[in-house]
Amino acid sequence: MLAAALRDGTAHRRTTFEVFARRLPEGRRYGVVAGTARFVEALAQFTFDESALTAISDFCDRETLAFLAGYRFRGDIDGYCEGELYFPGSPVLSVHGTFGECVVLETLALSILNHDTAIASAAARMVSAADGRTMIEMGSRRTHELAAVAAARAAYIAGFTGTSNLEAQRTYGVPALGTSAHAFTLLHTDRDGPDERAAFKAQVEALGVGTTLLVDTYDITQGVANAVEVAGQDLGAVRIDSGDLGVLARQVRAQLDGLGARNTRIVVSGDLDEYAIAALRVEPVDTYGVGTSVVTGSGAPTAGMVYKLVEVDGLPVEKRSSHKESHGGRKQAMRTCKDTGTILEEVVYPYGRRPQGESGRDLTVDIMRNGEPTAEFDLAAARERVKEGLLSLPWTGLKLSRGEPAIPTRIISPPSHQE
Amino acid sequence: MLAAALRDGTAHRRTTFEVFARRLPEGRRYGVVAGTARFVEALAQFTFDESALTAISDFCDRETLAFLAGYRFRGDIDGYCEGELYFPGSPVLSVHGTFGECVVLETLALSILNHDTAIASAAARMVSAADGRTMIEMGSRRTHELAAVAAARAAYIAGFTGTSNLEAQRTYGVPALGTSAHAFTLLHTDRDGPDERAAFKAQVEALGVGTTLLVDTYDITQGVANAVEVAGQDLGAVRIDSGDLGVLARQVRAQLDGLGARNTRIVVSGDLDEYAIAALRVEPVDTYGVGTSVVTGSGAPTAGMVYKLVEVDGLPVEKRSSHKESHGGRKQAMRTCKDTGTILEEVVYPYGRRPQGESGRDLTVDIMRNGEPTAEFDLAAARERVKEGLLSLPWTGLKLSRGEPAIPTRIISPPSHQE
Repeated sequence: MLAAALRDGTAHRRTTFEVFARRLPEGRRYGVVAGTARFVEALAQFTFDESALTAISDFCDRETLAFLAGYRFRGDIDGYCEGELYFPGSPVLSVHGTFGECVVLETLALSILNHDTAIASAAARMVSAADGRTMIEMGSRRTHELAAVAAARAAYIAGFTGTSNLEAQRTYGVPALGTSAHAFTLLHTDRDGPDERAAFKAQVEALGVGTTLLVDTYDITQGVANAVEVAGQDLGAVRIDSGDLGVLARQVRAQLDGLGARNTRIVVSGDLDEYAIAALRVEPVDTYGVGTSVVTGSGAPTAGMVYKLVEVDGLPVEKRSSHKESHGGRKQAMRTCKDTGTILEEVVYPYGRRPQGESGRDLTVDIMRNGEPTAEFDLAAARERVKEGLLSLPWTGLKLSRGEPAIPTRIISPPSHQE
Repeated sequence: MLAAALRDGTAHRRTTFEVFARRLPEGRRYGVVAGTARFVEALAQFTFDESALTAISDFCDRETLAFLAGYRFRGDIDGYCEGELYFPGSPVLSVHGTFGECVVLETLALSILNHDTAIASAAARMVSAADGRTMIEMGSRRTHELAAVAAARAAYIAGFTGTSNLEAQRTYGVPALGTSAHAFTLLHTDRDGPDERAAFKAQVEALGVGTTLLVDTYDITQGVANAVEVAGQDLGAVRIDSGDLGVLARQVRAQLDGLGARNTRIVVSGDLDEYAIAALRVEPVDTYGVGTSVVTGSGAPTAGMVYKLVEVDGLPVEKRSSHKESHGGRKQAMRTCKDTGTILEEVVYPYGRRPQGESGRDLTVDIMRNGEPTAEFDLAAARERVKEGLLSLPWTGLKLSRGEPAIPTRIISPPSHQE
């Protein structure tokens, strides 16, 4: 595409590409934008070195190779902040520049936004279901080794308390949290058999009584007894990773209380998703450890966003063969709400033509101008945005069951060419 | 865990950790191992530099930091080759060394194997459904930006023809294939309206008549007419990306034949998965472009493998609180088959104790000895293994519908300690 557009001169036309989702994942009522900051960061490094140019020299002509050798994005970007809710048709990101400089960004923009948004959107449902309890993201081992780092970040944006992924702490400052594995208990086995107490003793000596002991390697009741015997009544927490977690949490709570370990918390883990988390809400659970379901988007591993050319030299363009697929023209968006703060409608309008007399919060912000970032990215602010976003939803929007988007999207068409 | 094990001396015990799947993703009949070579490659770089050590110095004691500063895996690894089929309980990878050197590899091993295996397993079903037709992996934009590269590699192992991901070509030599996007056609729009012919002309001039023209931006029948008019009867291919692909493929085939473009191929794309691919088998489709479903594992984005301590100082260990979860002891595996080559059973036995008098193909090979790779990794060989593996399945194993694993796994327990 780039080669052909350079050849016929169209590569230099001014274009706008828009990132949006035609629909939310099936049955979802809202999505949470994440990845924008990672995209801006990646964009700064999106250049073509000798090795890259050599790799494509077989099928790229000289003009294309020369274009890529000098490539650096110098256009403008605007869109939604990280942590903002989005709905079908929300113009999550708009990229402005020449066709040549914008078209090569499709995969970078979509990979990052589709992945991070999928995780944040699933994570927000879990956070909402957990109703204020501590949430540890521990799914690194169930997704690609670097996707894991981005997933920890996205889950944190959505409201998770921390992650077991140390690289996410180093790279993004996501708080590192963790427990121990069955392997550590099993390690304390010799010819006389297993010795759970020795494992607990070693852990407490290394990490103090505030640590979390995993009590379900052999017999849970014995495990809890061993844990309190070794660590005392000030033991930080016990973790249960198997069995009927609700029943076990109640039993373990009673046992801990009976042993005087009233402040020892209960951590549960083991194939938890938003539904299992919600079902455990009535149980004496203090912390959820969530793995597979959060890093795989709990049934929706991609946000399904697309990157579509919507404007060429000021003219709106759109695919015609299936009419509802895209809406031409550069856009902005705002969200209307009731006096109570409950949101009513996503209003998407042609750039610079904010509907007169309608009040609403502006959603589109400047992200980049002339290739330089203009927005500040702050995980704490993104977390705050998710929190406010969830509070702003109509009550049906928080339901975990399958349904329609929580609010409708109204897309205002650009003025016709005659205007 | 590492800190506590270093403190009480158990970190130096000789251990075996095993990577296996307790079950296949729901309804799947087989899985395809992928990622082993990437894991071995990553392992060579798995060390802790100053920056990494500083990042964890808050909560790691001096002995732990010193251990990590000098860390390099020096143990042994054996397991299944890439491209090998696997079933529940197959010992896909066994890692041998001290507890300290093995326990820190859990996330690295599982991330890579769970991701790549999930993709290869889904991709193999698609390849099988496509029955020999060309398959292009084009899902990069629907998964994390680096997971995309690994996904292209895994899909290629499973039998895909190539990928639209250029980085996968550069890094792994996966053939790069691709078409153009609607954006390119839409770009050719001016005040007089869209000009599809101009777009096709530019593409043919840059890439020759062997290129693939995307014909469904406006009206497909007109698009096909324009394509043949511009490129002539030797046009390489047309792509259809929307609508009822079966019906459209037939119409377009008839139109192309009528225009004398009898050798022009038809490429279809647009939310294809193994079921859609199978449904199009009777249609005149030459090439499938597959995106979202392959890079997200078509409903099973992770293989769900675990990394479990199974042996300590020669003693088998296993979690007891839920009996079926793991089987202690270091293992090897073989696969029995009928004279026709159809496979019968996965036999998993204690290391070095191959069942007497049973014939079968050995599945466990040396991968690393004393921290040095001993296996050669070759994508062509892995592709061949998948091909042979699919041929070896009993016919029910190739069914796309939900079912049981194609063959049972027999796990032979280690001899008791008294022996």
